[in-house]
Amino acid sequence: MPKQPKTLDDLFHDTLKDIYFAEKKIVTTLPKMAKAAQHPQLKMAFEKHLKESEGHVKRLEQVFGIIGKKPQGKTCDAIVGITEEGAEIIKDYKGTPALDAGLIGAAQAVEHYEISRYGTLRTWAEELGFNDAASLLQATLDEEKTTDQTLTKIAESAINQDAEAA
Amino acid sequence: MPKQPKTLDDLFHDTLKDIYFAEKKIVTTLPKMAKAAQHPQLKMAFEKHLKESEGHVKRLEQVFGIIGKKPQGKTCDAIVGITEEGAEIIKDYKGTPALDAGLIGAAQAVEHYEISRYGTLRTWAEELGFNDAASLLQATLDEEKTTDQTLTKIAESAINQDAEAA
Repeated sequence: MPKQPKTLDDLFHDTLKDIYFAEKKIVTTLPKMAKAAQHPQLKMAFEKHLKESEGHVKRLEQVFGIIGKKPQGKTCDAIVGITEEGAEIIKDYKGTPALDAGLIGAAQAVEHYEISRYGTLRTWAEELGFNDAASLLQATLDEEKTTDQTLTKIAESAINQDAEAA
Repeated sequence: MPKQPKTLDDLFHDTLKDIYFAEKKIVTTLPKMAKAAQHPQLKMAFEKHLKESEGHVKRLEQVFGIIGKKPQGKTCDAIVGITEEGAEIIKDYKGTPALDAGLIGAAQAVEHYEISRYGTLRTWAEELGFNDAASLLQATLDEEKTTDQTLTKIAESAINQDAEAA
């Protein structure tokens, strides 16, 4: 018997597993970035975002509940690649004045991946009529965008100048 | 003799190699996405962005020239991961009504990676006083943002409804 063709419901569920894996990966990565960061403001921003990301994992678990599925991750090659680039920055730039600028660049790549995923999932949740899920996803999307803007401000206010002046 | 500590110039050069690899990868990926796309509007958007991406590669080569370096790529794990996810969508959703929605989601992940990279590089170019490079990077950044918005419009206008209704 042929399988049912996949639908937007399947795509939503698959992408939810992808970002669930990604958020859990981010929760293990942010403490390393906070530890490596030199500027106190950047260290604090990473620590704050760690707390938020733990909340994002919980929100995703609620979304799984709303669609009647068990929370389950699926290896997200994108976030694996993005976080590997961050780890490389820490290794290559440790002890240099450019480290913080590199960490911010790496973190903003993570934020933008999440912004694209949450934007997509929020729109699909609306299409599928999962309004409560759409609100949860929107709340996380807003926090990711704010984090991205905070990182830009920190970079522009101090860190890039330090990196250049050194 | 100890090596010179790495600076923002090195970080700029390293990140330039990363996005140069990524753009070339995208140029080989977009024809596959255009071929897979079902909706004519989406097919056209991918074809248009392919032409633009070929221009982005050329702009990056100009930026390498401005900093006195030879154009050279460096494996970008992030884009490898992101494009692998796109390939998986094509494989898993081929022939289904949700394929186009999945392709748009994958393409927007690519766009957001590029938006983060070009934003970072543009800011660093300004800090380093490479004003012509900053203008080239800004021009590409604007095109990536426009592509992202175009994809959102295509998704919202037709494709998600089709995917759901099927």
